[in-house]
Amino acid sequence: MERTITLDHGSGGRATHELISQVFAQAFHNDYLGQMNDSAVLPVPEGRLAMSTDSYVVDPVIFPGGNIGSLAVHGTINDLAMSGARPLYLTAGFVLEEGLPLDLLEEIVQAMAQAAQEARVAIVAGDTKVVPKGKADKIFINTAGVGVVPPGLELGGQYARPGDVVLINGTIGDHGMAILCTRQGLALEGKIQSDSAALHDLVGDLLQACPEVRVLRDPTRGGVATTLNEIARQSGVGIRLFEESLPIRDDVAGACELLGLDPLYVANEGKVLAVVPPAVSEKALEVMRRHPLGREARCIGQVTEEDPGRVALRTRIGGHRLLDMLRGEQLPRIC
Amino acid sequence: MERTITLDHGSGGRATHELISQVFAQAFHNDYLGQMNDSAVLPVPEGRLAMSTDSYVVDPVIFPGGNIGSLAVHGTINDLAMSGARPLYLTAGFVLEEGLPLDLLEEIVQAMAQAAQEARVAIVAGDTKVVPKGKADKIFINTAGVGVVPPGLELGGQYARPGDVVLINGTIGDHGMAILCTRQGLALEGKIQSDSAALHDLVGDLLQACPEVRVLRDPTRGGVATTLNEIARQSGVGIRLFEESLPIRDDVAGACELLGLDPLYVANEGKVLAVVPPAVSEKALEVMRRHPLGREARCIGQVTEEDPGRVALRTRIGGHRLLDMLRGEQLPRIC
Repeated sequence: MERTITLDHGSGGRATHELISQVFAQAFHNDYLGQMNDSAVLPVPEGRLAMSTDSYVVDPVIFPGGNIGSLAVHGTINDLAMSGARPLYLTAGFVLEEGLPLDLLEEIVQAMAQAAQEARVAIVAGDTKVVPKGKADKIFINTAGVGVVPPGLELGGQYARPGDVVLINGTIGDHGMAILCTRQGLALEGKIQSDSAALHDLVGDLLQACPEVRVLRDPTRGGVATTLNEIARQSGVGIRLFEESLPIRDDVAGACELLGLDPLYVANEGKVLAVVPPAVSEKALEVMRRHPLGREARCIGQVTEEDPGRVALRTRIGGHRLLDMLRGEQLPRIC
Repeated sequence: MERTITLDHGSGGRATHELISQVFAQAFHNDYLGQMNDSAVLPVPEGRLAMSTDSYVVDPVIFPGGNIGSLAVHGTINDLAMSGARPLYLTAGFVLEEGLPLDLLEEIVQAMAQAAQEARVAIVAGDTKVVPKGKADKIFINTAGVGVVPPGLELGGQYARPGDVVLINGTIGDHGMAILCTRQGLALEGKIQSDSAALHDLVGDLLQACPEVRVLRDPTRGGVATTLNEIARQSGVGIRLFEESLPIRDDVAGACELLGLDPLYVANEGKVLAVVPPAVSEKALEVMRRHPLGREARCIGQVTEEDPGRVALRTRIGGHRLLDMLRGEQLPRIC
């Protein structure tokens, strides 16, 4: 097989079949994908279905802590986990640029396969398109996912109530700054790692111990501030963050300062914001801290009756700063 | 709102929210999409789940008989229908090029919404990314879909048996030639319409009347010849086509001749190949012909014991020509 992607690989003919069998099917192998029909036919346990999709266009495609392939698996798993679902199946749609080195594709596909395997999720269907050189940038990946929500569980951005507290499982802004430092060739490069990770096990532990959780959401594009704005609007409540409680790595804070960015607007790919009633906040933090992805879990804010629909930061010196949704494209192609 | 897409629309912040609420949510509105959480939570009837994905990169994005939006809905519905599933839910992932006119996006999104509505399928989750000008070509759309396969139904490329017959619901090569004639500015332009259509109702009628159907598959990229090669390999049988039975429009045949293409390798987007036992072939044809998308249904070939894994054409003058899988990229960006 040619060691670069050609238009031929997108023809639907012989070369497409070779690419599928030699690259994708080998990496992702499972019984469902092996059916090789137009769609995979899948068993599902009882419950409601959660369904989500995300396209990944991150630049660069390989970065400290992951690549576009592992990110595409983690991101969609996390979207499912945020609705309380146990992720079951993923689909993968590839748009490849003619001339993409096959070695690079294989590295990305291997990372996807490994991420899916570690998360015990099967990639059950896929699609590959190739566009002429210059009509896309290396590789774009779409993953769509399906999971099952256990009966009785009801999470959603509309359920935050005054008095609730806002928890996070670790440091803020790592993914966005890892990408940006790599892209800009900052001297810090390589030090800041993306936090890209699958959160469904952590979330599973949390929901098992604290079914009272009201909202789960992952602060990706737009960061913690934008995500909390969404929740504040959906629930018609205010949210207040405590500056001194925000977990931010020193190197991330330094890079943000250097580039004039606010870490509260920088994307995360392995973080979950949990809004929980105050009575269970200690138990929730304990459970999160027992999981490797939640060791630095902490309470960063609370839900208020005042200022419905708005998010404010209580600064170290006791002042208040309004945190609106992100305006303007802070970091293009961050995921 | 700006009348062209800016990087800002992909930030995840305020502009993204405006785009979602003013363009996507209005067009696709339904209760599931309205949940506005990280994934949609959905009821599913009992049965096995069918799941499929396809990315669409067709060029031009608007063509006689449809556009990339309607195509993206029809294509994934059809992939689900081919496994005997009743399509229920779609996700939509957009990769937009900076500078895309918002009017064009709205036209595409409207066509998606209309196609989904006509097919009684809900678009339940979505995602939008924007890449800088020159890093994609106008718009790429991924649709992933979920459907339910009724208990007991078992279709698949591996079930063709010698003696079975091969049926098709209408003319061959329309979609590919509609795209190619438009792209090349051929004088014929506008006369050849894409056959892009959702086939699940036709397939539903067929399976209700003839549950004995063995294989259903839609001959998209690679065309009828490549799709039948897949079935021949999966089932370990030979397939023989009858040249005089192939339904091909005169203008499609003419355009193919002009461009040196074989219509058997040209993509279709509203056609289904059905492999059925001979005893039910007449009934199957009758049922298909009663549906508006099957009026020209006919038998085009049969499954043989000889030449397992191969497809041959019995020509008008009685000779035989081997039809291999498509080699080389005949028509890039056809879907």
